[in-house]
Amino acid sequence: MKGVERFVCDRNGELQNDELIAEEPLEIRISGETLAVTMRTPGDDLELVLGFLHGEGVIAFSGDVSSITHCAKDPNDEESKKNTMEVVLAPGVTPPIDPESGMFAKRGTLTSSACGVCGRRAIEDLLARVEPLTTEVNVPHEVVVETVRALKQRQPLFRATGACHAASLTTLTGVHIATYEDVGRHNAVDKAIGHCLRVDALPLSNHMLVVSGRCSFEIVQKAVMARIPVIAAVSAATSLAVKLAKASNITLAGFVRDDAMTVYAGVAIAR
Amino acid sequence: MKGVERFVCDRNGELQNDELIAEEPLEIRISGETLAVTMRTPGDDLELVLGFLHGEGVIAFSGDVSSITHCAKDPNDEESKKNTMEVVLAPGVTPPIDPESGMFAKRGTLTSSACGVCGRRAIEDLLARVEPLTTEVNVPHEVVVETVRALKQRQPLFRATGACHAASLTTLTGVHIATYEDVGRHNAVDKAIGHCLRVDALPLSNHMLVVSGRCSFEIVQKAVMARIPVIAAVSAATSLAVKLAKASNITLAGFVRDDAMTVYAGVAIAR
Repeated sequence: MKGVERFVCDRNGELQNDELIAEEPLEIRISGETLAVTMRTPGDDLELVLGFLHGEGVIAFSGDVSSITHCAKDPNDEESKKNTMEVVLAPGVTPPIDPESGMFAKRGTLTSSACGVCGRRAIEDLLARVEPLTTEVNVPHEVVVETVRALKQRQPLFRATGACHAASLTTLTGVHIATYEDVGRHNAVDKAIGHCLRVDALPLSNHMLVVSGRCSFEIVQKAVMARIPVIAAVSAATSLAVKLAKASNITLAGFVRDDAMTVYAGVAIAR
Repeated sequence: MKGVERFVCDRNGELQNDELIAEEPLEIRISGETLAVTMRTPGDDLELVLGFLHGEGVIAFSGDVSSITHCAKDPNDEESKKNTMEVVLAPGVTPPIDPESGMFAKRGTLTSSACGVCGRRAIEDLLARVEPLTTEVNVPHEVVVETVRALKQRQPLFRATGACHAASLTTLTGVHIATYEDVGRHNAVDKAIGHCLRVDALPLSNHMLVVSGRCSFEIVQKAVMARIPVIAAVSAATSLAVKLAKASNITLAGFVRDDAMTVYAGVAIAR
């Protein structure tokens, strides 16, 4: 299965084959220079890179990218090649250059498997840059519950390994658009948004983001950038996630169960 | 409670007070220049910074640091002050300067709440730098099971919020040393190791690291740096975590339950 590696492990004294979630570094380069390195589950790198660049504010739609290819300095280095994505931005699209140093704006060169906000020097930078969503939307309570239930059915890597996150995008009427899994929670979100960006479906103003675990600041940040008005999480939200959701006019629900949910911010969920 | 923020939330149509895990950015500076920003749960910043600097290979023991204080450029800016730690390294201790740019080696300026390997350009850099542990240790199976069980009793923030990670350090005979909780899994580990560094108890060659969730690459990386020979996780390990554990001669167990566990790497756990 894609995204899984097999290891021989000792389970209570008996050797057995075990399936582990694949975790490998992906280096994202713009015109030859390293922008970021993220620990991710290989398999949907194009979507991941598009979603990452969008979340960081580098690109707004697919036309902002001329090309994205797996490549390496040494073309014979297959290992390096599969873990390096080279991006060429379209003419007129500016890479994030730090005016002080003339280099890429200081940001993570190895954003780990659960790191989505590397490169942002302070929360205030982001809050200052982001415009709150202005559209008023409604989503029925049952649709939120059903999309969370459906997400759990779309996690084959989790079933195999018990060790990865998932993110779905649906419409506000519950129509499924895409689901991706990854060892890093933010990568799963990047892949889902990148999938939509690839088919020029942004902004996602009538969509809901559904995440398999907790909702932290970085998840809300990515939703704001993609103009997603509703986020539903299987587990809790963090304090900063709630603050950003309130500041951005995003509805954020957590602990979504068949018979209950907690709404941390917003009024979009109709009972 | 420290590490928790109260919000009014809508729980199934009824407004109620809810406790959310506190998530705020911490900027780590060396002599005035930003080294990293991490999303963390406030409260044990000294331990966090010491552990982070150790994991990144900047310091080896507490004497490598002259001072660590909360401070900000504007001393009247209390908000900025509590989220900024200024480190002065001891004379002769070199900050991680990139020879090309003369600046800090490219690394995350906002390592997120679950990001521990920002700043490492490639896995190979780390594997090349790390020496495998050479000590041979043994830990009884029951001690591993008992320390995992004990960890669950030492998570007041998790009980209040359902949304944070924890890490314990114990001896190989099961004596509890320290437990810390954080919104980011790697921060909890940094705090626990930083606690030991603060009292000059490193290397932790006769100790076990116990983590509340999954074990990813970054957790093993921090254990290698602190020379911890055994890691036990409540949940699964990732593929790269297992590879690094094997390469480093670390014993790594996951899915530790009362009656079962999976040993992914190493031979230290005696039945």
